[in-house]
Amino acid sequence: MERSSRAAIILEALPFIRAFSGKTVVVKYGGNAMVDPALTTAVMQDLILMRLVGMQPVVVHGGGPQIDRAMKASGLQPAFVRGLRITDAETMRIVERVLVGEINQEIVALLGRLGGAAMGLSGKDGGLLTAVKAAPALVDGQPVDLGLVGEVAAVEPRPLLTLLQAGYIPVVAPTAGDGAGVTYNINADCVAGEVSGALQAEKLVLLTDTDGILDRAGVLLSTLSRADVERLTADGTISRGMLPKVQACLTALKGGVRKTHIINGTRPHALIEELLTAEGVGTEIVA
Amino acid sequence: MERSSRAAIILEALPFIRAFSGKTVVVKYGGNAMVDPALTTAVMQDLILMRLVGMQPVVVHGGGPQIDRAMKASGLQPAFVRGLRITDAETMRIVERVLVGEINQEIVALLGRLGGAAMGLSGKDGGLLTAVKAAPALVDGQPVDLGLVGEVAAVEPRPLLTLLQAGYIPVVAPTAGDGAGVTYNINADCVAGEVSGALQAEKLVLLTDTDGILDRAGVLLSTLSRADVERLTADGTISRGMLPKVQACLTALKGGVRKTHIINGTRPHALIEELLTAEGVGTEIVA
Amino acid sequence: MERSSRAAIILEALPFIRAFSGKTVVVKYGGNAMVDPALTTAVMQDLILMRLVGMQPVVVHGGGPQIDRAMKASGLQPAFVRGLRITDAETMRIVERVLVGEINQEIVALLGRLGGAAMGLSGKDGGLLTAVKAAPALVDGQPVDLGLVGEVAAVEPRPLLTLLQAGYIPVVAPTAGDGAGVTYNINADCVAGEVSGALQAEKLVLLTDTDGILDRAGVLLSTLSRADVERLTADGTISRGMLPKVQACLTALKGGVRKTHIINGTRPHALIEELLTAEGVGTEIVA
Amino acid sequence: MERSSRAAIILEALPFIRAFSGKTVVVKYGGNAMVDPALTTAVMQDLILMRLVGMQPVVVHGGGPQIDRAMKASGLQPAFVRGLRITDAETMRIVERVLVGEINQEIVALLGRLGGAAMGLSGKDGGLLTAVKAAPALVDGQPVDLGLVGEVAAVEPRPLLTLLQAGYIPVVAPTAGDGAGVTYNINADCVAGEVSGALQAEKLVLLTDTDGILDRAGVLLSTLSRADVERLTADGTISRGMLPKVQACLTALKGGVRKTHIINGTRPHALIEELLTAEGVGTEIVA
Amino acid sequence: MERSSRAAIILEALPFIRAFSGKTVVVKYGGNAMVDPALTTAVMQDLILMRLVGMQPVVVHGGGPQIDRAMKASGLQPAFVRGLRITDAETMRIVERVLVGEINQEIVALLGRLGGAAMGLSGKDGGLLTAVKAAPALVDGQPVDLGLVGEVAAVEPRPLLTLLQAGYIPVVAPTAGDGAGVTYNINADCVAGEVSGALQAEKLVLLTDTDGILDRAGVLLSTLSRADVERLTADGTISRGMLPKVQACLTALKGGVRKTHIINGTRPHALIEELLTAEGVGTEIVA
Amino acid sequence: MERSSRAAIILEALPFIRAFSGKTVVVKYGGNAMVDPALTTAVMQDLILMRLVGMQPVVVHGGGPQIDRAMKASGLQPAFVRGLRITDAETMRIVERVLVGEINQEIVALLGRLGGAAMGLSGKDGGLLTAVKAAPALVDGQPVDLGLVGEVAAVEPRPLLTLLQAGYIPVVAPTAGDGAGVTYNINADCVAGEVSGALQAEKLVLLTDTDGILDRAGVLLSTLSRADVERLTADGTISRGMLPKVQACLTALKGGVRKTHIINGTRPHALIEELLTAEGVGTEIVA
Repeated sequence: MERSSRAAIILEALPFIRAFSGKTVVVKYGGNAMVDPALTTAVMQDLILMRLVGMQPVVVHGGGPQIDRAMKASGLQPAFVRGLRITDAETMRIVERVLVGEINQEIVALLGRLGGAAMGLSGKDGGLLTAVKAAPALVDGQPVDLGLVGEVAAVEPRPLLTLLQAGYIPVVAPTAGDGAGVTYNINADCVAGEVSGALQAEKLVLLTDTDGILDRAGVLLSTLSRADVERLTADGTISRGMLPKVQACLTALKGGVRKTHIINGTRPHALIEELLTAEGVGTEIVA
Repeated sequence: MERSSRAAIILEALPFIRAFSGKTVVVKYGGNAMVDPALTTAVMQDLILMRLVGMQPVVVHGGGPQIDRAMKASGLQPAFVRGLRITDAETMRIVERVLVGEINQEIVALLGRLGGAAMGLSGKDGGLLTAVKAAPALVDGQPVDLGLVGEVAAVEPRPLLTLLQAGYIPVVAPTAGDGAGVTYNINADCVAGEVSGALQAEKLVLLTDTDGILDRAGVLLSTLSRADVERLTADGTISRGMLPKVQACLTALKGGVRKTHIINGTRPHALIEELLTAEGVGTEIVA
Repeated sequence: MERSSRAAIILEALPFIRAFSGKTVVVKYGGNAMVDPALTTAVMQDLILMRLVGMQPVVVHGGGPQIDRAMKASGLQPAFVRGLRITDAETMRIVERVLVGEINQEIVALLGRLGGAAMGLSGKDGGLLTAVKAAPALVDGQPVDLGLVGEVAAVEPRPLLTLLQAGYIPVVAPTAGDGAGVTYNINADCVAGEVSGALQAEKLVLLTDTDGILDRAGVLLSTLSRADVERLTADGTISRGMLPKVQACLTALKGGVRKTHIINGTRPHALIEELLTAEGVGTEIVA
Repeated sequence: MERSSRAAIILEALPFIRAFSGKTVVVKYGGNAMVDPALTTAVMQDLILMRLVGMQPVVVHGGGPQIDRAMKASGLQPAFVRGLRITDAETMRIVERVLVGEINQEIVALLGRLGGAAMGLSGKDGGLLTAVKAAPALVDGQPVDLGLVGEVAAVEPRPLLTLLQAGYIPVVAPTAGDGAGVTYNINADCVAGEVSGALQAEKLVLLTDTDGILDRAGVLLSTLSRADVERLTADGTISRGMLPKVQACLTALKGGVRKTHIINGTRPHALIEELLTAEGVGTEIVA
Repeated sequence: MERSSRAAIILEALPFIRAFSGKTVVVKYGGNAMVDPALTTAVMQDLILMRLVGMQPVVVHGGGPQIDRAMKASGLQPAFVRGLRITDAETMRIVERVLVGEINQEIVALLGRLGGAAMGLSGKDGGLLTAVKAAPALVDGQPVDLGLVGEVAAVEPRPLLTLLQAGYIPVVAPTAGDGAGVTYNINADCVAGEVSGALQAEKLVLLTDTDGILDRAGVLLSTLSRADVERLTADGTISRGMLPKVQACLTALKGGVRKTHIINGTRPHALIEELLTAEGVGTEIVA
Repeated sequence: MERSSRAAIILEALPFIRAFSGKTVVVKYGGNAMVDPALTTAVMQDLILMRLVGMQPVVVHGGGPQIDRAMKASGLQPAFVRGLRITDAETMRIVERVLVGEINQEIVALLGRLGGAAMGLSGKDGGLLTAVKAAPALVDGQPVDLGLVGEVAAVEPRPLLTLLQAGYIPVVAPTAGDGAGVTYNINADCVAGEVSGALQAEKLVLLTDTDGILDRAGVLLSTLSRADVERLTADGTISRGMLPKVQACLTALKGGVRKTHIINGTRPHALIEELLTAEGVGTEIVA
């Protein structure tokens, strides 16, 4: 490719770099997008570039597949209700070990090897998150207790602000204590939504493994308002795994985040495409 | 007890509080001292008091017993050579999960519940520690490969300084990467010695489960010089589990730490006794 | 006494140290409590400990007995109306010399010798206090002019804030100018009440030589509300020397101070007992 | 073009952005490269991007063609000796008016319209440059007085540091006073070399209208050492208009600048090509 | 003259120095007052003294006579409507060259030679001023287009605040862009009025070549209110060249400036007389 | 007097104001110069002006006549040996009361009423001075014990720097403790010399009641070197009361002070004459 074309393409990023300079962008990264090492490396490069061009990225990660594997290795069978993992004490111990002691450390170390400076933390570190037990899920009208599945009762943004100000990329594992010694497993999309609101982030970007929200005909919906989301949820167009993602976006918007995005994290450098080129990708949900 | 006597005792701490105000004290806390919840709570209270009266405590923790348990639960048999755990890849995964994803989080959460503000990190976070593979251990003159057991190649103090300055108690798990994607298990005493040197700490305090270094007659040795330590090591008075502790003290002294202490962490509030009362406890090794 | 008990007692101070960290505490110290050198030393140690554990103590001192002595040495006879010293020009000169040039300097020097860093000031320094002539006292319904007895017309907190921020313990002598060249003698309790309000202090502690406010049966009253104080003043339970102290507490509470205390300064380390142990001493007056 | 390819190209800039983050880069921009508005706009966009990705660009501009035009409009005939403009008082007045009152303002205004924040200054502003009269040029062994042509006697970097720290792109016109009321015209390449040294810049980039330094066969020389430059100057390969540029590079290197570049400013976005892509352009002269 | 009298006179300046310490004073300096070098030097000394005794002077300059000369030298004939210069594109080019590239530089250099530190800027630098085309002037009821004569649409005070904070005296030339590439010539009195309002200046001082506003009998009017000004404008006492000055004062007062002054700049050190002695000079217009 | 002449005279101060901006000037003010209220007011105005035009004045005061009066009022007879007051415990108590509790407060209050912000301190405040007992004076070859007359053993400049930085004029009374509870009376000239050295002051100015150092013929000596001073002391030209002043100047010069001055404080505004006019007054002693 012609060299000067490369320069021209870089130049096209200029207005986007300017617009997001100094702004906080929370990136939820998880699930299947984490399985492919090449993809993972691409996401990490994007995060480092974001930091270098002046953004303040914060990563929130999940870890479903790795937890499933670790549970099976211990002879436990994963079980879900409405997309939430039924979590007994033994499962919780595995969840915390895998999320905090394995996945979080992998991300932090990979960012470090690629030249970034990252610090991992869970909801317990610096009191970032206070959890509360989630309400039972309703299955066929019957309440089903989810065990140690929590919701976010409070966010203390100071640990993240301390790390951002010192130049680190914070990497958040979605576990938290309740202030009384019980540890909870919280949906990572939910954590990302709450954290982005507490940080008054510019954007929340959820990296998933589909192209975004599709209509009934399978066509990508580029931009949705809150009202659109409510209608599409009511008529079932938005369903299952997409429900917590959409809920996270609404939480973020309610908290003051300007824009939220659901994009395909299995597409290399989708983050940069979304943030630094004129063509947005995926679905954007705005207030 | 008479109220005014309480005030008088608190007053006696005044010269010690003054002497250590603003000074960094690295506390290695581990092993059997971690098993009793009441003892653990007492240590955490001591750390919080240290912070409140103006010291800058940094915790480095181990986790031998908990790792043993987790290995056995996974059907693995712990094996040691000269006090160092032979660590294959499967063991390393368990070590990291337990140290970073369980013990570190427990300490951070407990400090939080007791009113402190703590942040956990491993050697990977912020590039705190760079590991290098440890030399083989010599057993009967034969080298035995220890697997993923590492030594500290470099310390980057900035993550700890960032957290201390922001008012947090840093809690360090002794695992680290080598900068090329391999994770190592490092002896926690060793990490404490290196970190205290890199921070130019005032003191390194190793909490263990004996009263300190005893002479052949079983009498506690209160103060030792480096020369004393070399002599006692040569004649076998200092041996086995005490060897890495003594080595950590020498590393710290060489790095510029003013005083190092080996004290009995199973004695409630031994830290406060050592730091804030006239009667020192345990063995002190000085330059 | 058992060493570990000492540590335990120190530990019991932890929640109080935490609660008052960074908070300003104004201590009125005067009169008979100043006569015994051992007691004075004990009070100074308490103040230094307060500073070291993170509080911001400010001392306001009186000096009645010393002024009496100096007046008699000059052939003057002290005279009082309702506890206020009738102050002619010659008396005022003696008052200022003794308060500013003797007692204030003794306190500052003693704090220095005990390891503290103190700076003395009067109401004239940095324009801390502006005085106004006090209204005549009513004796048997007749107004009696008190001469150069003043009241606080205004407090400029900047000199105290400058000294506190630089790490000094400010020591305030209760004399002040009126902005037109006349110097006034102001009751030290009154100065302490006004200064604590202007600093939005956490506490005002008045060290006196009784255990606090007693009811008619001579039993100590631990906690009083403003309404209680008004009732007890009306029925004569609170009278004479206790009146200006109670008035200072009400002034402080009105100015936004959280709690005020009248405690027995002749009891060694009563300040530390009050501030750092669970058992309060003396009488507490709250809003 | 494929969207994801755009993202990939942007990503390739990552290591360069990281390497130059916070570094000062002095850009000499002048002569014929200034004539084409589209080219000028491209250079300005490059400068704004440099600032946004964390570099600290400083612009030094020339203005030969515009000065020629203005002189002719006033009935004066431009005359040069060894590339330096013979400058009498009337010419100097025109030079200063055109450089400071026209070209500098155009650049500042254009940067502003494109979203940058620029501040123009000459050597007189804030005492940035002190000039001294240049030695006569030798023509056929005879000295020829150049009039008000100056050299840089001293650089005061504070005005530039003030503007950089406040977030502005400084734009420097190459005129200066001698401290005694005489104004001098200084070669812009020379100013750029001196300023980059005084700022301890990372790079000096001279935008010219050729591809760099060519050998006798017309082939571009990519990298030259100081020794190479001396040899090529001695044998006449480097001559005429390239001489002051090469001299500016040597001045900069001697002053501590890390790398210097002579690149083709008529090629759109050559600055970005040089700074943010793997393929360097033009000729690089290094220490 | 007696030495001690000199000291006494300096002392008399004390209350004025105190009153204006840290306050911003905008000084409009222009026209005929700029022609005499001795007078110019006197004004510059006054500005440097203002800075040294703690004021924050900002200079706005005009340049009518110099522009007239430059136009004539280029064969153009200056033309005015209601005191505003009809400005076609060729004239505008001359105006900008002379104001920014000649007069501004002279003032900056002279301040520098006298020991001050000054930085010149136009409305384009740092986006200080945004211009908008002025409405046509009415001549005998008929609108006359003034060409490139502008008015101030917006002031961005940050460039001036940056320079003041760094210790420089900002010197402002009254030209500005409209954000779309067109440059305008703005009346310097008007710029001074707008800038003083945007800076919330303490004072605006307009140096002119008369003693101030005179009544019909030719007697100086010392102090005028806004109402007075309106009355005197209506009855024609204030007319012609004084009109834009009076308008600038009203603009400043409306913007929050405390006092405005029209004084005789041809009187040596009139600025110091006005600012630092008890006897005001000229006419003061207050809110 | 002509108004513009006043402005011209103020202007003449410009180079001096510039030269001393930000510089510390220690002023010893004492003895007979303090007796006349009008003179005292003039000195205080000078100090305030010094502060306003950017200098950092520090006052050290004496108080001989007032101490004499107070001693006599207490029935004590002042006695001197070689200009030093023989100071028993009773005398020391009077000295401290009068210097700290009367004269210091008068100066502070007067500065306040004239619009300055002053804070008084003695050598005890903030540990400014540590005293040591002075050696016995030799009278006819016999040592005579001076009692509580001290010399400066150490200066801690932090209290003065804290007050200067906060904008206060520090006013120092020449009494100090020895760190063991004994208070000493120190010659104020000596304190001024030591303090000016510790502050690395620009100037030390001693206000006395003669015009400076006179030669044998009674002619004022304008400038003396250290060598001159030694010669003039050896030959008896400098004698008696001038000896400690000259000694203070030498101490200051040795400590790094640039210039020292002995001037006539009974001449109104002599300080301003010396500092802000071209004609120096009194005798200047330089290194």
